[in-house]
Amino acid sequence: MTFHSIEWQGDTLRLLDQRRLPHETVFIACTTASAVAEAIHTMTVRGAPAIGVAAAFGVVLAAYRGEDIPAAAALLRATRPTAVNLMWALDRMLAVTPRTPAALLDRAQQLYDADIAVNRRLGAQAQALIPDGAVAIHHCNTGALATVDYGTALGALRIAHEQGKRIHVYLDETRPRLQGAGLSAYELRAFGVPHTLIVDSAAAHVMRTRRVDFCIVGCDRVAANGDVANKIGTYALALAARAHGVPFYVACPLSTLDLATPDGSAIAIEERAATEITHVAGRLICPEDTPVFNPAFDITPAELVSAIITEQGIVRPPYGAELRSLLANQ
Amino acid sequence: MTFHSIEWQGDTLRLLDQRRLPHETVFIACTTASAVAEAIHTMTVRGAPAIGVAAAFGVVLAAYRGEDIPAAAALLRATRPTAVNLMWALDRMLAVTPRTPAALLDRAQQLYDADIAVNRRLGAQAQALIPDGAVAIHHCNTGALATVDYGTALGALRIAHEQGKRIHVYLDETRPRLQGAGLSAYELRAFGVPHTLIVDSAAAHVMRTRRVDFCIVGCDRVAANGDVANKIGTYALALAARAHGVPFYVACPLSTLDLATPDGSAIAIEERAATEITHVAGRLICPEDTPVFNPAFDITPAELVSAIITEQGIVRPPYGAELRSLLANQ
Repeated sequence: MTFHSIEWQGDTLRLLDQRRLPHETVFIACTTASAVAEAIHTMTVRGAPAIGVAAAFGVVLAAYRGEDIPAAAALLRATRPTAVNLMWALDRMLAVTPRTPAALLDRAQQLYDADIAVNRRLGAQAQALIPDGAVAIHHCNTGALATVDYGTALGALRIAHEQGKRIHVYLDETRPRLQGAGLSAYELRAFGVPHTLIVDSAAAHVMRTRRVDFCIVGCDRVAANGDVANKIGTYALALAARAHGVPFYVACPLSTLDLATPDGSAIAIEERAATEITHVAGRLICPEDTPVFNPAFDITPAELVSAIITEQGIVRPPYGAELRSLLANQ
Repeated sequence: MTFHSIEWQGDTLRLLDQRRLPHETVFIACTTASAVAEAIHTMTVRGAPAIGVAAAFGVVLAAYRGEDIPAAAALLRATRPTAVNLMWALDRMLAVTPRTPAALLDRAQQLYDADIAVNRRLGAQAQALIPDGAVAIHHCNTGALATVDYGTALGALRIAHEQGKRIHVYLDETRPRLQGAGLSAYELRAFGVPHTLIVDSAAAHVMRTRRVDFCIVGCDRVAANGDVANKIGTYALALAARAHGVPFYVACPLSTLDLATPDGSAIAIEERAATEITHVAGRLICPEDTPVFNPAFDITPAELVSAIITEQGIVRPPYGAELRSLLANQ
């Protein structure tokens, strides 16, 4: 089973509208780079690996329409600042020479296929950390919907389940956009992985009162020192894990590593619209015009990360040399 | 300005329906103990001090109707297990002799008036911990709506504002029931206290990236050793505060102290309906029948609590002897 959240059909990029899940399965058809940019900005498509691949096809669409390629890439690059996979994918598209529509399509399809292969390898690597009977806490959505297929952290858990390991996953609902409730619960139900939904602030209580073997999350960017940018709430979860001696794992492809960024303080944290907090499912939950602070991501310092799981292997602290070595051996 | 969330009128207890705030100001009229019990159970009225006083008037209503007083008290006592103020208020009602309607009404009105006086004194005591210009993080709702008037933690912040201190309050929205968004933002707006709404999981990020002088919360029960039962998420907030060296204050009346409970492990943690998590504002946010774990409260160990603020004074660790001494000098 697969979700096909990103599909290329002839001259159209079809994107599963993740804002309407789990209630409706609706696709939007993008035929221009600007439509793809809008879909990334509005989080119709989301998840660091998925937006990288979607943006690559956005560049293809610009080429098909005879638009300026660097301008289209710049438009796509500006949609969301935190996930480095977006920049990584666009850089690979811009490196195509000559930038013919056919060559660009070929590169985008390579990125698409590579994402699936990378996630399968990442999930296989992760099995060394997932014992039979494991109980995990997972934040946000990092599954097939966040990638081309399989996913990173959630993909690793799915593979563990497919291997017959009797795992159980606590899913943080992940306010404000509730990707854990709307997307991760939807995926784990589809794959038959036992799970329990909790509010984000209950994760620490779960660790204090029940057995939890590890926390596992995806990632939008890893800095050279191992600091991790990921969905808001990741840092709070990592602090709780540390307080309970629960290992905290980050699963991401090598394309998420950004050695040009020395540490987390150099990563731009996107702030999104107040309405993401003030409205849930279209309903106002607070007084009109309540002042809001809505950072979409936070930084988890490297010292709270027990291991980073990539398709190339698992690295542990200190991360600096390990991450450089991983990329050098790619 | 006051909210009059609990009003006694002739032979009727009027309760502000807090489930409909901030959008609608609707009162429900209770003329029986069982109606009051239902209002407490459904959280039409909520907040540890408020449900204690509401239950006291429930006993009065039973007396007015010639019902069995101990049976009515037992019904009211069974509505919610965690907040000890409910048990405390009912014990005071049962101690009335003889249990005439007039005598019971007199006692309930004493509890009502005492709650206001206690909160004002508690708020005054708290000022020693709230400097001019303070930035605080607050969880759940602990204001006038959670009490008869003024409130505990939020009351202390309101008094600081009334004294001209330029404070700013980050409000945790407090999933699942969103009392921070729906009730605390409503109160602070009414009183003109500057505030910013955040998702619960962002509090740690706020502490890491902005100046926060302290966290302050209310409480449903304090055990003899200083362990604190409070709204789910309190523990996660306290862990984040500890990691950042941010003082973590608990504000509660003496009626919240339960020296008969040795520590937090002996406090029953209420689990509430799955729909509180699966539905927000009536809308399903996850697949139908998603398995849920919904503890309404958690336990914050005494070692994470910097100070407990009561109407009788501020106590600091080690709490055992200090709490006993407070109650002895009452």
